[in-house]
Amino acid sequence: MATKSKPEGRLLYAQSGGVTAVINATAAGVIEAARVKGVPVYAAHNGILGALREELIDTTKETKAAIAALRHTPGGAFGSCRYKLKSLDANRAEYERLIDVFRAHDIRWFLYNGGNDSADTALKISQLGKAMNYDIRCIGVPKTVDNDLAVTDCCPGFGSVAKYTAVSTLEASLDVASMADTSTKVFILEVMGRHAGWIAAAAGLAGEGADAPPHIILFPERPFDEAAFLAKVKATVERVGWCTVVASEGLLNAEGQFLAEAGTRDAFGHSQLGGVAPVLAALVKEKLGYKYHWALPDYLQRSARHLASKTDADQAYAVGKAAVDYALAGMNAVMPVIVRTNDAPYRWKIESAPLTKIANREKKMPASFLTKDGFGITAAARRYLAPLIQGEAPPPYGKNGLPQYITLKNAMVARKLEPFGK
Amino acid sequence: MATKSKPEGRLLYAQSGGVTAVINATAAGVIEAARVKGVPVYAAHNGILGALREELIDTTKETKAAIAALRHTPGGAFGSCRYKLKSLDANRAEYERLIDVFRAHDIRWFLYNGGNDSADTALKISQLGKAMNYDIRCIGVPKTVDNDLAVTDCCPGFGSVAKYTAVSTLEASLDVASMADTSTKVFILEVMGRHAGWIAAAAGLAGEGADAPPHIILFPERPFDEAAFLAKVKATVERVGWCTVVASEGLLNAEGQFLAEAGTRDAFGHSQLGGVAPVLAALVKEKLGYKYHWALPDYLQRSARHLASKTDADQAYAVGKAAVDYALAGMNAVMPVIVRTNDAPYRWKIESAPLTKIANREKKMPASFLTKDGFGITAAARRYLAPLIQGEAPPPYGKNGLPQYITLKNAMVARKLEPFGK
Repeated sequence: MATKSKPEGRLLYAQSGGVTAVINATAAGVIEAARVKGVPVYAAHNGILGALREELIDTTKETKAAIAALRHTPGGAFGSCRYKLKSLDANRAEYERLIDVFRAHDIRWFLYNGGNDSADTALKISQLGKAMNYDIRCIGVPKTVDNDLAVTDCCPGFGSVAKYTAVSTLEASLDVASMADTSTKVFILEVMGRHAGWIAAAAGLAGEGADAPPHIILFPERPFDEAAFLAKVKATVERVGWCTVVASEGLLNAEGQFLAEAGTRDAFGHSQLGGVAPVLAALVKEKLGYKYHWALPDYLQRSARHLASKTDADQAYAVGKAAVDYALAGMNAVMPVIVRTNDAPYRWKIESAPLTKIANREKKMPASFLTKDGFGITAAARRYLAPLIQGEAPPPYGKNGLPQYITLKNAMVARKLEPFGK
Repeated sequence: MATKSKPEGRLLYAQSGGVTAVINATAAGVIEAARVKGVPVYAAHNGILGALREELIDTTKETKAAIAALRHTPGGAFGSCRYKLKSLDANRAEYERLIDVFRAHDIRWFLYNGGNDSADTALKISQLGKAMNYDIRCIGVPKTVDNDLAVTDCCPGFGSVAKYTAVSTLEASLDVASMADTSTKVFILEVMGRHAGWIAAAAGLAGEGADAPPHIILFPERPFDEAAFLAKVKATVERVGWCTVVASEGLLNAEGQFLAEAGTRDAFGHSQLGGVAPVLAALVKEKLGYKYHWALPDYLQRSARHLASKTDADQAYAVGKAAVDYALAGMNAVMPVIVRTNDAPYRWKIESAPLTKIANREKKMPASFLTKDGFGITAAARRYLAPLIQGEAPPPYGKNGLPQYITLKNAMVARKLEPFGK
């Protein structure tokens, strides 16, 4: 039963861009917090496209247990998309359509869960209220495995891919070490990270000291120096017996070109990468003659909820809950961000930050995080990264040996408007 | 203190071939069982090479806790190798050297932990006693992620890579499903399996029914039919919205050639494969125009102790313990094998089988395990595979967020002989 103090209207939540192991934990935070306040939540099907197409999911049809299970389910439960709204001048019709949909369904709060591009979209929508005479509060909610959002100390989604990467580097290195005498001497692990080497840096947590893996990390922040790379591979194999290399997909040559340019681009104009590892492996074979193996876990790294960081899963939930609190308190054009208050023991809290300081900006790794030779991480990087992979938050497993991931009913809300555009 | 009933002599344990997530659990089973009987265990450094080179590790120097930690540590704790002994006729000197080393260190039992090739080596060594007048008992101990050993119902190491593959297929598919509207429509996961599609088949446990991933599995048992493959990808994308493909590295074309022949060969004469996924991805892009992603987890899949199957870890330990029991009971030229006594609930026991029935044989998947179109697994396959991924056996994690894997002291035994040829 609605009470007098219940806020009027509905809240719309949408997931944007590449999904993560914990973006659904944020969805759980949003929906559970809104339920406490008596605010019904709709979710846009496939991100902002669902809002444009009036494809809205009624989350009130989901059980409490189903929403709770989102907290341990990877992927995007309502669908996500890569679709960037143009500027208000360039495509006013899209913004007018969004307001039409909001108005038709009494959407008073819009929470947009994504990265840099999504923060920009959220900012534009937050400004629509005045421009189009409709009272809408828009909150950006952080999410990206790339860890490249400004202001926030870290990004939900990153801690889990960081943990996956560090653990995988450690495990594969134990394998390589066992066999190096007669088999593979150089193992190359390619990780995500278009323009910032945060994920590659996290691999550095697998070990410490010159002889511990990974022996070489290749960052997009440092142009690839073939001679220095080969010299270090050779020295490592001669000293340790084998060598583990972690390479960022965004590794650039001296001319600033991706070593593994695939030549296709996504809707945001980003290059679609993949395959720097085989390029490096061929180089090692040709120039040094070592037997190699390489791995490219691709989506496995960002969907590995089975190996999520508890810190990350907790933060993902917390930003969802905070976003609801901010929205219902009448805040607009802000994002809940993670503020670190202590390194060891790790302490953090959530605060709000203006979207103007986040939209379209990209946080690079501090230069102080890379060793002088550019092939490793410093103590400062370890201090920053270490807390983010701490703690385990395994999903429940069924008797069949698989994690019990939830598939929601995703009941669609009846349309009230004519179809939009195409 | 030695007692009168203590068996005389030492036991030598060696790891052979590609390592697994649970081969060290077998080592723990061997060492713990031998300690109970008061038999000191040496481990050969880097497999049979350590025996030839007289590089022996004294496991009595390791603490009880360290040996127990082997049970949850991936890789090969004593080193493994790819090195196949020639026949007795072709290289009698190697066998004489082995006997010299055994005699010098009072090795009375030799346990060789490996796959088909290693079972053959174990068989040859078991026959040396008479030929060279030295009393040695040799037991083969099963291990291979390829699950292709004869006689045994399954092979330690396989259940864990099977679980990793099924879980990864499920997780990545949740990711792809979220994004398919505007992004990747076809995801291809390449898995290990040179000549038998056991690991690829295990991916089928990720889901059941035509719309559940994986939608297509490509087995080395069925020559690649490009037209049928593309038709099924297209139909799946049109019906489901996206398509997950799992491809075995050993996929062959109609002419019997590997689709991803790398052209190099290992010491056993096996081709070194890698890269059928990008070949398939390029085909999908060229012929159907769909955006794709592909993953190649390589060593990650066989070293992922963090996601081990409890069934597998338990069986790996049990074959190690049984091997010691057999050896000390005076058995020779046998292997402890896993006998399934019931599917559901799953029940198994360990029995001995003669190495003559195992050496150099390769268990193929039964034809009844593949669906008629060759792109999926049957109910019979599910009945067989399902129990093998059941149960979780996570390693302990440290405060740093990493599994607490053990590195042994690996104290070397003083040499008594001159170096051996090579």
